[in-house]
Amino acid sequence: MHLKDIINDNNRLFMEDRIPEEYKTDYFYHTVADMHAVALPINTDEVIGLVKYSVQKDIPIVVRGAGTGVTGAQVPFVGGELVIDMKLMNRILDLDEETMTLTVEPGVLLQDIQELVEQRGYFYPPDPGSKHSTIGGNVATNAGGMRAVKYGTTRDYVRELEVVLPDGNLVTLGSLNIKNSSGYDLKNLFIGSEGTLGITTKIKLKLLSLPKYKQSILLAFDSLQEASNAVITILKNGIEPTALELFEKGTIEYSERYLNMKLQSQLGKAYILMTIDGNDKDVLNHQIITVNHLLSNKSREIIVLGNDEEEKKAWKLRDNILVALMQFTQYEMLDEVVPINKIAELINYTKELQDKHGIEVINFGHAGDGNIHTVLMKGDLSEDDWQMKRKAYLDDLYQKVGELGGLPSAEHGIGLLKKPYLEKMKNPVELNLMKTIKNAIDPQNRLNPGKIF
Amino acid sequence: MHLKDIINDNNRLFMEDRIPEEYKTDYFYHTVADMHAVALPINTDEVIGLVKYSVQKDIPIVVRGAGTGVTGAQVPFVGGELVIDMKLMNRILDLDEETMTLTVEPGVLLQDIQELVEQRGYFYPPDPGSKHSTIGGNVATNAGGMRAVKYGTTRDYVRELEVVLPDGNLVTLGSLNIKNSSGYDLKNLFIGSEGTLGITTKIKLKLLSLPKYKQSILLAFDSLQEASNAVITILKNGIEPTALELFEKGTIEYSERYLNMKLQSQLGKAYILMTIDGNDKDVLNHQIITVNHLLSNKSREIIVLGNDEEEKKAWKLRDNILVALMQFTQYEMLDEVVPINKIAELINYTKELQDKHGIEVINFGHAGDGNIHTVLMKGDLSEDDWQMKRKAYLDDLYQKVGELGGLPSAEHGIGLLKKPYLEKMKNPVELNLMKTIKNAIDPQNRLNPGKIF
Repeated sequence: MHLKDIINDNNRLFMEDRIPEEYKTDYFYHTVADMHAVALPINTDEVIGLVKYSVQKDIPIVVRGAGTGVTGAQVPFVGGELVIDMKLMNRILDLDEETMTLTVEPGVLLQDIQELVEQRGYFYPPDPGSKHSTIGGNVATNAGGMRAVKYGTTRDYVRELEVVLPDGNLVTLGSLNIKNSSGYDLKNLFIGSEGTLGITTKIKLKLLSLPKYKQSILLAFDSLQEASNAVITILKNGIEPTALELFEKGTIEYSERYLNMKLQSQLGKAYILMTIDGNDKDVLNHQIITVNHLLSNKSREIIVLGNDEEEKKAWKLRDNILVALMQFTQYEMLDEVVPINKIAELINYTKELQDKHGIEVINFGHAGDGNIHTVLMKGDLSEDDWQMKRKAYLDDLYQKVGELGGLPSAEHGIGLLKKPYLEKMKNPVELNLMKTIKNAIDPQNRLNPGKIF
Repeated sequence: MHLKDIINDNNRLFMEDRIPEEYKTDYFYHTVADMHAVALPINTDEVIGLVKYSVQKDIPIVVRGAGTGVTGAQVPFVGGELVIDMKLMNRILDLDEETMTLTVEPGVLLQDIQELVEQRGYFYPPDPGSKHSTIGGNVATNAGGMRAVKYGTTRDYVRELEVVLPDGNLVTLGSLNIKNSSGYDLKNLFIGSEGTLGITTKIKLKLLSLPKYKQSILLAFDSLQEASNAVITILKNGIEPTALELFEKGTIEYSERYLNMKLQSQLGKAYILMTIDGNDKDVLNHQIITVNHLLSNKSREIIVLGNDEEEKKAWKLRDNILVALMQFTQYEMLDEVVPINKIAELINYTKELQDKHGIEVINFGHAGDGNIHTVLMKGDLSEDDWQMKRKAYLDDLYQKVGELGGLPSAEHGIGLLKKPYLEKMKNPVELNLMKTIKNAIDPQNRLNPGKIF
């Protein structure tokens, strides 16, 4: 059998010298291994053919989507992998209005899904920062994003997955049934498994009705601790924010400088930017009144962002933090998560470590989920210094995350970069259970070897 | 090693003649096998001890809670099982208000959880019919109930499970972190696994704030098809009912006769009884207006149940269907589930089969989830006739459920009674994947052998 027998198209099969540069480099993982070939299938049969070829030739496989992953999960690691790039399997197949289900291929971009369903009056809530990521990649990492505090993560919107298993067998996991107590929940096992258990070839997504109204509010606080307390106050009082973002003044200043605009509040040390949504204007107004009532004495100021333009401005500043930062320094972004009552303690600790290790950090994140993006900045450090300090910093930080009951990754996955920390932070019995399952489903370690553990 | 070395208490360890009758019989599964012993542990260490004893003696284990299961999952099957009854591990350990998490032992009754948290202003939404079931049993079957259409099932409220594995190792699955992309989702694999993968010894549950208001509405329709269409209309228009129950006139008449009271509407052939809840009275009112607007021309009548007493009466009639039926006949209740747009087709088919097989059925169920409880009634049939007709009926029915994209169990589990239908309805590749995982985690087939598959 030859790869050309499966994909007989020079534009979709690349070997040796013809392998494009984009597959050989990665922004976050620098030592990409050699690969056997790069194949771009256009249907499930071709994916099955590629897996069977790999079985016959005993070649490992790594699957990738848009390549926006930040942990190295989508690049060859052991060497000699067949790279399967799913980006040409990018058709939106069906929108079933009766069951409110969207059927897509894995290579569809998140932004294309959001656009299409919103035009039709529906809503796909998961909203990771990278809109150019593929939905297949979102499933592989259980991508989260801004709206998870109210609406959950990708996992909560996957009804059904069509998956090619490591032996080339095809299986459908999950169903359109809303309730299920009919055997093991395999669908959730495969979601977030980072390409190590199967190759997703079709996805059925649950849609919601698009909420009619939304409203954003900016709250300013004198300290991170007070902002963090406010997060808990908001959530405990039955308010269900769509987004509940926390950032320090020092963080948003990068965006302010880059975009040359100012956040609507310049008071205090820490901010909460929250959005509420719903189908009833009165309810939103009542929620705003409640927020004012609960927090007016505990904050420096509360600004209801009165119109679309003000709302867009605040969110633009928030959304551009990383892009802004890129103009000033090289950085490494983390996505650690802790129980929501531990956010302040974690962020304060990131500051302690800043002084201890001489490495500058800023924080922003999805406070409603306990998911913080700590960003380590290289600044003026030499490459050697940066690597050394960065490692020492991460060792300390993840140690603390573990002590607080947290996890190394909320939404980006483990891939290669966080492997050592997952190993340290997870109970060996649990880690062993994961490996047992991997070994049972993929005894030849064919799919994405070396990733996660 | 002797069992007495682990549980040195005659009131918590029963062997041979001392085994109480309640363990030897089951209302739904009649041929309970012999058992090695019955042990009632009071802490995790004792559970570990019992598992290690079973490993040493090579004895299978079956775990039970309140024994309210309806599929035979909690009784010995292969013979010689050590029965571990968890009902004495029934402490509520902690209510953490900051993370809104309740920590309980598995033997706590559902009603005790609901009562305690509601007194404190919190809400545990899963609401299976059997309030005397244990939370451990709810986790083992991913129990659903009335409020699943808005709030989801048990799965959605389990944050963390402490589990004793088949080799006696203890592991904690899940965490208080809301987002997670840190390795395989083992927690969801164990939820709904019906005691075949591990023994749950501690559970952390997610709580919500208790909604301030609720309102029930009764809708009458000329046909099941129209009622079923109305379900889809309601869900598609952004209304989020807490409960959305569908029943035929012929079904509720059993309750009416038994309770000697009349449902508020006597028009039409099929009813929807729905509840909405929330923290804003105006929103509820708006939703009622919307329902009226959408459905007044498509229903016989819409009755807003004005006060607590009226609301209670309607729900009492709904809740007593099975108890009422018990007065009139022996029966078998199913819990099949189909995509929500297939409900009418399924219910109509149950009626066709009624005529074909000469076995009377009624239907009620959680229409918002596509979860129907079809009830087969023995009536005047002889035992032989009943068994023969019932099997022929079920063969046809589950065949149809499968064709409609449905599943044999929405919320009760597979246990022993639905095994042949799971086998027929699931793709062999998926079933094989489940068995592969069972075999990897429990290679000696120690836990609940013969259940599910």
